[in-house]
Amino acid sequence: MSAAAPKIRLFVDGALSPGASVAATDAQAHYLLHVMRRAPSDPVALFNGRDGEWRAVVQTPSKRHVVFEVQDQLRAQSGTPDLWLAFAPVKRIDVVVEKATELGVSALLPVMTRHTDVSRINFDRLRATTIEAAEQCERLSVPVIQPAQNFDPFLAQWPQARRLFYLDETGGGAPIATALQDEVTNSCGFLVGPEGGFAQSELDALALLPSARGISLGPRILRAETAALAALACWQALSGDWRAGLGGLANQSLIP
Amino acid sequence: MSAAAPKIRLFVDGALSPGASVAATDAQAHYLLHVMRRAPSDPVALFNGRDGEWRAVVQTPSKRHVVFEVQDQLRAQSGTPDLWLAFAPVKRIDVVVEKATELGVSALLPVMTRHTDVSRINFDRLRATTIEAAEQCERLSVPVIQPAQNFDPFLAQWPQARRLFYLDETGGGAPIATALQDEVTNSCGFLVGPEGGFAQSELDALALLPSARGISLGPRILRAETAALAALACWQALSGDWRAGLGGLANQSLIP
Repeated sequence: MSAAAPKIRLFVDGALSPGASVAATDAQAHYLLHVMRRAPSDPVALFNGRDGEWRAVVQTPSKRHVVFEVQDQLRAQSGTPDLWLAFAPVKRIDVVVEKATELGVSALLPVMTRHTDVSRINFDRLRATTIEAAEQCERLSVPVIQPAQNFDPFLAQWPQARRLFYLDETGGGAPIATALQDEVTNSCGFLVGPEGGFAQSELDALALLPSARGISLGPRILRAETAALAALACWQALSGDWRAGLGGLANQSLIP
Repeated sequence: MSAAAPKIRLFVDGALSPGASVAATDAQAHYLLHVMRRAPSDPVALFNGRDGEWRAVVQTPSKRHVVFEVQDQLRAQSGTPDLWLAFAPVKRIDVVVEKATELGVSALLPVMTRHTDVSRINFDRLRATTIEAAEQCERLSVPVIQPAQNFDPFLAQWPQARRLFYLDETGGGAPIATALQDEVTNSCGFLVGPEGGFAQSELDALALLPSARGISLGPRILRAETAALAALACWQALSGDWRAGLGGLANQSLIP
């Protein structure tokens, strides 16, 4: 692919339809006018997670404000895989959230396990990270970030019909390719523990949950964020939208 | 796995055999004495990429120097997969190198493509990153980092018998699971382009190379480092040492 000029794609809250006007946030206005030096009538692409992707043009009713005038639809809304990532917050939580967005997760669920040593989560920053990653990777949606839960209520509330693959660092799980090839999992989730691993009581509780299945990622000890991203990539390749006949947006030209 | 006390594992240059003495580097001495507060006779595990992993004890002939007295072997040297990662250097090159080490690559090959916009590579820092990652993930080897090459000589020197999977962002490649399930690839490599993608002339050259095969990672546009790590994870799961019956070091107790 050639190094085309950057195509600006922005996530907005407002409804997108022909002729609609959508106000840019202050941060978006600053980015468009002062970072990217866009002028009135310059094109952008907008998405809101509901109405697909739309061509719009920049208007500047005042020096600091930007309004988008929505023109026509570029892509219809399409489904994202029903893939959840539950994870013990780690120091590199931003990496987990950014990469998980690129890798197509629909929901992010922070879980405070026994050995989790990160106690504060900056949800505003995580939300901004998911939006920025969604804008860059051409997703039509932004993953939902759930409030943090403790391990026991998290497990108690896990939907019975949703397969939960947990990364068992003790080596007791099935090889990931075996687990993913054993069954079709259209809606599922992965659970990744903290750097210190799961407590034995947590592993015992997981073993009792019918929807849970332990998986293994080989002989090396992976950092938590590496394990999360590796598992998501394997799922997309074997069960998700990286499979034959399901891909192909990469070369689509969004803004002429 | 319980949150056990950190087990110190260090990479050394010297030969490892019963009774051998191996000098610690200044950085290792500082780490052991002042960061980890180790005392004479405390145990560590050592590996050098050739002789397996050995138990050793710390000795301090002077206040600033540390010598390791090698005792007995903990693990025999075992092969790593013959997996290369060729990549256009990107801003987050440290992430690529760290994660590739965890994901078991044997060689890292920086390739300067047409659209690569990183011109300087700090090889000393990359080497340190690979060593630290190998120490942490319980590898018995450290990946080799090759000198940077331009795209044309890189391609001309690629071994004919080694499959080269390149990540084709234009969507023209086979889905990665399909490509990996089509053939057994015991020795292979992946090539990942820069953020701007490959130039058309580079894609044309790849199409003419019999050992090269384009692969696709689905409909979203992945950052270069995400694409590299996702591809390596899929290979390990489907063709590498994450497969059934090949894993299982995770629970091994290295230092009693």
